[in-house]
Amino acid sequence: MSKRIIIINGPNLNLLGKREPEKYGYQDFESYFMALRKSYSDIRLDYFQSNVEGELINKLHETGFAYDGIVMNPGGYSHTSVSLADAIAAIQTKVIEVHITNIHAREDYRHHTLTGAKCSGIISGFGLVGYEMAIEYFLSL
Amino acid sequence: MSKRIIIINGPNLNLLGKREPEKYGYQDFESYFMALRKSYSDIRLDYFQSNVEGELINKLHETGFAYDGIVMNPGGYSHTSVSLADAIAAIQTKVIEVHITNIHAREDYRHHTLTGAKCSGIISGFGLVGYEMAIEYFLSL
Amino acid sequence: MSKRIIIINGPNLNLLGKREPEKYGYQDFESYFMALRKSYSDIRLDYFQSNVEGELINKLHETGFAYDGIVMNPGGYSHTSVSLADAIAAIQTKVIEVHITNIHAREDYRHHTLTGAKCSGIISGFGLVGYEMAIEYFLSL
Amino acid sequence: MSKRIIIINGPNLNLLGKREPEKYGYQDFESYFMALRKSYSDIRLDYFQSNVEGELINKLHETGFAYDGIVMNPGGYSHTSVSLADAIAAIQTKVIEVHITNIHAREDYRHHTLTGAKCSGIISGFGLVGYEMAIEYFLSL
Amino acid sequence: MSKRIIIINGPNLNLLGKREPEKYGYQDFESYFMALRKSYSDIRLDYFQSNVEGELINKLHETGFAYDGIVMNPGGYSHTSVSLADAIAAIQTKVIEVHITNIHAREDYRHHTLTGAKCSGIISGFGLVGYEMAIEYFLSL
Amino acid sequence: MSKRIIIINGPNLNLLGKREPEKYGYQDFESYFMALRKSYSDIRLDYFQSNVEGELINKLHETGFAYDGIVMNPGGYSHTSVSLADAIAAIQTKVIEVHITNIHAREDYRHHTLTGAKCSGIISGFGLVGYEMAIEYFLSL
Amino acid sequence: MSKRIIIINGPNLNLLGKREPEKYGYQDFESYFMALRKSYSDIRLDYFQSNVEGELINKLHETGFAYDGIVMNPGGYSHTSVSLADAIAAIQTKVIEVHITNIHAREDYRHHTLTGAKCSGIISGFGLVGYEMAIEYFLSL
Amino acid sequence: MSKRIIIINGPNLNLLGKREPEKYGYQDFESYFMALRKSYSDIRLDYFQSNVEGELINKLHETGFAYDGIVMNPGGYSHTSVSLADAIAAIQTKVIEVHITNIHAREDYRHHTLTGAKCSGIISGFGLVGYEMAIEYFLSL
Amino acid sequence: MSKRIIIINGPNLNLLGKREPEKYGYQDFESYFMALRKSYSDIRLDYFQSNVEGELINKLHETGFAYDGIVMNPGGYSHTSVSLADAIAAIQTKVIEVHITNIHAREDYRHHTLTGAKCSGIISGFGLVGYEMAIEYFLSL
Amino acid sequence: MSKRIIIINGPNLNLLGKREPEKYGYQDFESYFMALRKSYSDIRLDYFQSNVEGELINKLHETGFAYDGIVMNPGGYSHTSVSLADAIAAIQTKVIEVHITNIHAREDYRHHTLTGAKCSGIISGFGLVGYEMAIEYFLSL
Amino acid sequence: MSKRIIIINGPNLNLLGKREPEKYGYQDFESYFMALRKSYSDIRLDYFQSNVEGELINKLHETGFAYDGIVMNPGGYSHTSVSLADAIAAIQTKVIEVHITNIHAREDYRHHTLTGAKCSGIISGFGLVGYEMAIEYFLSL
Amino acid sequence: MSKRIIIINGPNLNLLGKREPEKYGYQDFESYFMALRKSYSDIRLDYFQSNVEGELINKLHETGFAYDGIVMNPGGYSHTSVSLADAIAAIQTKVIEVHITNIHAREDYRHHTLTGAKCSGIISGFGLVGYEMAIEYFLSL
Repeated sequence: MSKRIIIINGPNLNLLGKREPEKYGYQDFESYFMALRKSYSDIRLDYFQSNVEGELINKLHETGFAYDGIVMNPGGYSHTSVSLADAIAAIQTKVIEVHITNIHAREDYRHHTLTGAKCSGIISGFGLVGYEMAIEYFLSL
Repeated sequence: MSKRIIIINGPNLNLLGKREPEKYGYQDFESYFMALRKSYSDIRLDYFQSNVEGELINKLHETGFAYDGIVMNPGGYSHTSVSLADAIAAIQTKVIEVHITNIHAREDYRHHTLTGAKCSGIISGFGLVGYEMAIEYFLSL
Repeated sequence: MSKRIIIINGPNLNLLGKREPEKYGYQDFESYFMALRKSYSDIRLDYFQSNVEGELINKLHETGFAYDGIVMNPGGYSHTSVSLADAIAAIQTKVIEVHITNIHAREDYRHHTLTGAKCSGIISGFGLVGYEMAIEYFLSL
Repeated sequence: MSKRIIIINGPNLNLLGKREPEKYGYQDFESYFMALRKSYSDIRLDYFQSNVEGELINKLHETGFAYDGIVMNPGGYSHTSVSLADAIAAIQTKVIEVHITNIHAREDYRHHTLTGAKCSGIISGFGLVGYEMAIEYFLSL
Repeated sequence: MSKRIIIINGPNLNLLGKREPEKYGYQDFESYFMALRKSYSDIRLDYFQSNVEGELINKLHETGFAYDGIVMNPGGYSHTSVSLADAIAAIQTKVIEVHITNIHAREDYRHHTLTGAKCSGIISGFGLVGYEMAIEYFLSL
Repeated sequence: MSKRIIIINGPNLNLLGKREPEKYGYQDFESYFMALRKSYSDIRLDYFQSNVEGELINKLHETGFAYDGIVMNPGGYSHTSVSLADAIAAIQTKVIEVHITNIHAREDYRHHTLTGAKCSGIISGFGLVGYEMAIEYFLSL
Repeated sequence: MSKRIIIINGPNLNLLGKREPEKYGYQDFESYFMALRKSYSDIRLDYFQSNVEGELINKLHETGFAYDGIVMNPGGYSHTSVSLADAIAAIQTKVIEVHITNIHAREDYRHHTLTGAKCSGIISGFGLVGYEMAIEYFLSL
Repeated sequence: MSKRIIIINGPNLNLLGKREPEKYGYQDFESYFMALRKSYSDIRLDYFQSNVEGELINKLHETGFAYDGIVMNPGGYSHTSVSLADAIAAIQTKVIEVHITNIHAREDYRHHTLTGAKCSGIISGFGLVGYEMAIEYFLSL
Repeated sequence: MSKRIIIINGPNLNLLGKREPEKYGYQDFESYFMALRKSYSDIRLDYFQSNVEGELINKLHETGFAYDGIVMNPGGYSHTSVSLADAIAAIQTKVIEVHITNIHAREDYRHHTLTGAKCSGIISGFGLVGYEMAIEYFLSL
Repeated sequence: MSKRIIIINGPNLNLLGKREPEKYGYQDFESYFMALRKSYSDIRLDYFQSNVEGELINKLHETGFAYDGIVMNPGGYSHTSVSLADAIAAIQTKVIEVHITNIHAREDYRHHTLTGAKCSGIISGFGLVGYEMAIEYFLSL
Repeated sequence: MSKRIIIINGPNLNLLGKREPEKYGYQDFESYFMALRKSYSDIRLDYFQSNVEGELINKLHETGFAYDGIVMNPGGYSHTSVSLADAIAAIQTKVIEVHITNIHAREDYRHHTLTGAKCSGIISGFGLVGYEMAIEYFLSL
Repeated sequence: MSKRIIIINGPNLNLLGKREPEKYGYQDFESYFMALRKSYSDIRLDYFQSNVEGELINKLHETGFAYDGIVMNPGGYSHTSVSLADAIAAIQTKVIEVHITNIHAREDYRHHTLTGAKCSGIISGFGLVGYEMAIEYFLSL
């Protein structure tokens, strides 16, 4: 049976490709994900995005006892959500936190990650490549 | 007319019985609530759970001018949500905050409760029994 | 073509008229908005309210590349939401933050506004009149 | 053999009934305790009050290996006494901390309880009823 | 009798038009005020500027029992002056604080306004238009 | 009937005259008090000293509903005792706090006085003369 | 030759009698001072008030090598002015700081006094009587 | 004449041997002290224990001008008692502070010792042996 | 010409295999590196370890204008060294920071990384695999 | 045309020579300045001193678009004045901050300089020689 | 086989005897160590000093699996070095931290010891005698 | 005999001329020093640079009892090194701290200088000219 991995994106990541495209590029995350799915055709790769904190918690509950790996970018909730951190701690599947930019090189309030403290590992600052690094890690286990 | 009391549970409390069962027990909150409803058959006892901060606010608005008592466990939102605290302050029904564990004996960021500051009282550290203590208090008024 | 402006209200503002009416008045925001729409019949004026943080982000994404102005009262989320602030920074339409009361004259944790830091301007302490001042500003551009 | 429970009150609680009686009522704690003892005639219920931090520690040492439950209101020492907290941690009997008012709704320096962090549970904001809730909890064990 | 309103500007605002003109424009506040006075010819509109904290306090004392409204931009004193805040609290006329830039989007030490906490309302981030918004508010009373 | 005033001294003040006498003088507080009592022979002037926090609370309870004035030097407890501050707030007699040295010119942790915040007034830095200033104030009422 | 003592009042104290008279009384400081001068006809008693920080420093320089005592109420500058504190430390005449209200019972930012740390003593919370207590102290030297 | 040394133990140290004996051993401090006295039969070695802060101050006053050395373990008061620290500073005999455990390896609030700052030296983390090291130091003088 | 990549390890990483081997394994970093070099035989892979902060700076200077990538684990210096951070900022080669454990799940003082703020990206919590993830990233450029 | 440089001194610097002369010397700043002017007879060297914050701002405005260099010692205002810092930032002439003593070796609140952050450079701890070092620097440009 | 104990001294301790000799004495540590070695001729006693943080780590690694005890005075690194603390935690030999002066009676930044938190015990304030106390402790094991 | 002065540069200053040359210039410190030595041919001017904290301490010890002046730029160690500060305090030669940029205008953690607090004076923000200003000061003594 093939491995099951899900990418869960938090708030504002649905704007990729639309937000300041000259800076972030014209590719939205959905098309990036389609390409990703192709390269990893031998595993089941799912994708979920929501701007709602509670829906992210719901999705973690739903997949957190069934999937082999969760790659999560909690966006701004990383720095403020005790509840999301509690959800990560409560489930069984390992979660890897990914940040597109280097959070330690940005505003002070982004240096601390409540959710990351409950994850297995954190990858920060490698752009979209960070998602692939996380998947590769799960495959190497 | 019989009293109306509602239990409102916040994020991750739907995982009880599933999350680390050897530690928290195999009983989920729903079955616990069913037993509770039986012992208090002479009052109307309702139950609501959501992981979404805004839905908890909605439920407070909906019941906060109609019920006789609200027993609430805001979970992780206790420590971060100004908006939930505002909602408790805005309604007419008294709210009692319940925490299963002793929040003062856990991590520093759980010592302070924004929502509790707007409640009539707080019960913390008595396990599920805390919910009954809160109901008893409302019945004694 | 007429200008398009939207008012977005955050948590608990749906309780206006119901919450402590002897203090806040018996007028709910909806009827106030109806009157407002009449006075500004030459522009398209819309209204949205939600207690859910993520739905507010969704609405900002939806209108933030199409409208001419956004008047927003994020309520309690002003002080806690990095994600909402990120959303304001990510869209193209200018946002003006409005607070009914003077946030600097209230509790300490209301002095700092994460969302306001990403807005063009802030109007605080003028009651409902603040919404009109914001609309007038957009019209004067 | 009947259960043995003791109520230990800290500083200033001996003034109940005398201090601002129009506000706190004309009943002193002693007469309240007499009534309490009557309702719980099947257990041995004792009472001790002192304004002296060290005498409270002494009483905890004395009863903390012999009684079945300790209901304690450490008053102002809750927020300042490492030694009292050490005493609670050192004994065998479970201690429940009771506060007449909601300590999270008062001054900042009352939000943190050093002693409560070593107790099994905390009940705060229910007036004198809080003492009964604590006793009931011990009886339910 | 026509309304009497005064604009009081604090330190460095006399440099407008001179300081980095390619950025702030070539118009000084005095000529802006002259135009303003023309548009509001039916009220008595006065203007005072000083870089001296105590002279600003003196002017508040002098006008604060006689005028119908005070529009004040305390500049850098907003963030440091307990005495200016005391003066605003001591007089009878309502004061509206205006900031040309959005103080919440600048340095940390500009996020907190001691003087604003004693004003009726704060308008921040609308450029010179903010002064007119404040006058309009006084006229709408 | 003559006025009744009591001086209550906290920890270490019994060492006056013995502790570094070349600096603090060879007069102990008892003999100073004897002289003081003589000059105020027309009032009843009492004196109490204890190093025990709880005994100071006891004495406040005992005299706080009967005397006309309490002059108190809580020594080191000024900076640490919530319970002593609660006692001052609970009694009816006015309390004036006296410090022999200027507490604002000493270590940082002596700048804040928890007990003083509950007193009518504070006199700090005038040596033993401060006690007389406090008595004179009570007589002038 | 008779002693020379000066009372120096800082910002907003010129409003006494005018500011909330039902609360602070209808007597302004000037008439209070006239009465004071009469009772102390055997000394030279002067008075100076300014809202300007620098003028207060000037007056301290002017009198601080010539007078026998300075009674100063620096008002809001007590809590913010390093420069005023430096001036008090630089002169030869002893300065006594007087506050009409008990600064430790008010807002947090009034608990700390930069200027008081450089004075001989501080009298706080005795209303206008505090000025007389300070004068009496100088006369007792 | 033989040297006089006293060991003064603060709160909860009377529970040694009783508190978690499998961890701390079955020996109480009294029997340990008896053995100690035997090994140091050529000096006068005394012992005092109290849970009451003020009684510890009393004992310091009593012995602090007569003994040759004081070995003190202030327990939890080390971290909170300004008054005990004042007492140590006021007496003539040198005091050595002993902690059974390494206070720097425990909770944050135990890293700072107010009393230790006034002692000659601090010995922390050597178990009961720490008391002997302190006595040896006094004998080596 | 093949790519040149260097792994730079900071303090205590030379103890791998020796320090708590039952926990960290019996493999030292040198042998791990030998295996790594084999798998990446088509690039030039170098290794440097030092416990001396300045030698790490020296090595960064030496390689930072010549190599194609630097994989660095600064160990404890990550959290304290402004100088090492300055060195990373001063060179031309990109640096990726690797931590074997998840630094956000450990002590508070490890949550902040001064050096990481100057790196392109950070990989934390993946054990030794983190080094390979970093190398892979450089090869993917 | 010769260069124009002005020395601007802030509060209390007019007391030099008078304040603790055995320590600071008997020379006042005015006579020092006279000597300085002589040594720099080929440039136009001016001097201004004021204890009034606003007058210092006025002088900066007046000279800040006309002079070739400003040497400023803001005294105590260095640590508290946002307005003075704003003035330095607003003018065109470069400002060098001079402190007679080493501000980093004094009280904590003197370590931070708000005004210095807006200057080109800071010279601290060289006594009066610091003024000459600043002038020399301007001449070397 | 005789026990092996090493004394490791950190930065600036090589200056003993040279630095302020009238205060610290004319004896350098080396000659003190020579005397020490003589008194403990039955054990192997070694000595190492370095001003380089990394060399101290190296020495800990080198001796930390072979010696019976390490007596270490990390000097200023005690308060700043996470890496040195990590080294102490990583080795097998017990380390005792010695400070010549009482670090709790000095500047605030010396009250906290990062390295001491990883040691078995700390001896502070006994001068050079502290080294002997540490050796005696190791011999008593 | 001619004066002896040494320039000691800390970490990363060896990169001058190489690091971002279009910004910092193409001149390395060594060639700058050569020119400097020529202009001061009548004194003995030495130079030392190291990235190793301990080597800087060693050099201070070596020259600090023999040279007439030390000009030091401790780079990033200024803000973190208690040990370097201790070394400066321990030697006899005066040290002047030089920073090429204005440290108060940069990141927050550069505003505080531990080493500077122990120096005679600090020169910050004058580029390489700062070194000459320091030498000139030593020559003027």
